[in-house]
Amino acid sequence: MSASEEAESGPTQTVVTLDLEGVLIPEVWVATAEATGIEALMRTTRDEPDYDVLMTQRLAILAEHGLGMDEITEVIAGLEPLEGARSFLDGLRATTQVILLSDTFEEFARPFMAQLGWPTVFCHRLVTDDRGRITEYRLRQPDQKRRAVKAFHGLNYRVLAAGDSYNDTTMLAEADAGFLFRAPPNVIEEFPQFPALTSYDDLFGALEENL
Amino acid sequence: MSASEEAESGPTQTVVTLDLEGVLIPEVWVATAEATGIEALMRTTRDEPDYDVLMTQRLAILAEHGLGMDEITEVIAGLEPLEGARSFLDGLRATTQVILLSDTFEEFARPFMAQLGWPTVFCHRLVTDDRGRITEYRLRQPDQKRRAVKAFHGLNYRVLAAGDSYNDTTMLAEADAGFLFRAPPNVIEEFPQFPALTSYDDLFGALEENL
Repeated sequence: MSASEEAESGPTQTVVTLDLEGVLIPEVWVATAEATGIEALMRTTRDEPDYDVLMTQRLAILAEHGLGMDEITEVIAGLEPLEGARSFLDGLRATTQVILLSDTFEEFARPFMAQLGWPTVFCHRLVTDDRGRITEYRLRQPDQKRRAVKAFHGLNYRVLAAGDSYNDTTMLAEADAGFLFRAPPNVIEEFPQFPALTSYDDLFGALEENL
Repeated sequence: MSASEEAESGPTQTVVTLDLEGVLIPEVWVATAEATGIEALMRTTRDEPDYDVLMTQRLAILAEHGLGMDEITEVIAGLEPLEGARSFLDGLRATTQVILLSDTFEEFARPFMAQLGWPTVFCHRLVTDDRGRITEYRLRQPDQKRRAVKAFHGLNYRVLAAGDSYNDTTMLAEADAGFLFRAPPNVIEEFPQFPALTSYDDLFGALEENL
């Protein structure tokens, strides 16, 4: 069998896709609420299931408190990745290719990316006006995490994935192997097909075993 | 227009895809030939247009000189990225998402990636036996650079691309904007549709203008 024929057989190279919030960094809105003391920013999709309504409220709250992009960036720059996240991620990036798939916004992610050594992250985007006020949000595409896994499959990569929330489960299902990491009990219970892990060492081991 | 409707309009987020050899690092086979003093490794696709024949010869030459994966890794670890490459890449990664698309092998790329701060790289792979000898090479897929650009388009990203060789031109053509960087005169002449740049400052400026 020649090299070019073998290229047509199954993938031998791997991309690991990781959720960001809850896996490597704290939940950004919760952390922003805590850092600014704005209680109303604590509301999540558990309180308001309509994401459009929730985000519109959040942007209104920011505007009300005079928090534009610069202030938010400053707040977030004062936050830190989860303990052990940087060293876990550094080890993984030295072993295989890693792409973070997050439903946060690139402006919120950036200060964390600086602290994590600038891994690649696919997420969404906010729109600001010329005074730096956040006027809207733009989802890059619906179900972006699952679609990214499909795209990497199309590039003949094996894909391993880890995440903690409902919005990660289509990504985990699409991947060749999927892991829950520090997921809440209801997610673990509802998706028993995904091993549920809580330490970076265990996650690293599980990923490495599947490389 | 609601946020979700806007998600269906044109992309507002960008991925920059960069070739690796000749753009950020020296040509790996040439550098390996120089570092090891093995003249026969200087042969390139210009001397032997059949890539399969060329690679089979290269692997035979390595075996003949007793160079397995460990020795090659050591040779490559002594090489350095091109002058200014790290700071150019650092600046770009702090501005947008960057993915390196290279027709080299991940084992050859890894020592350079360590020096470049572990950017994401999509490339190919070598196969070693249990004694560390390189026995074959596996192309992940044909025309992988163009296919990666198409995949990022499918994820609703604008794509900007830069490279120096024939094997980059399908990537440049597929991208929303493509740039030649330190390309040889024949490539520049044959592809006048792509601006030809030679300094990292100029390339950074051209990419930034298109973000």
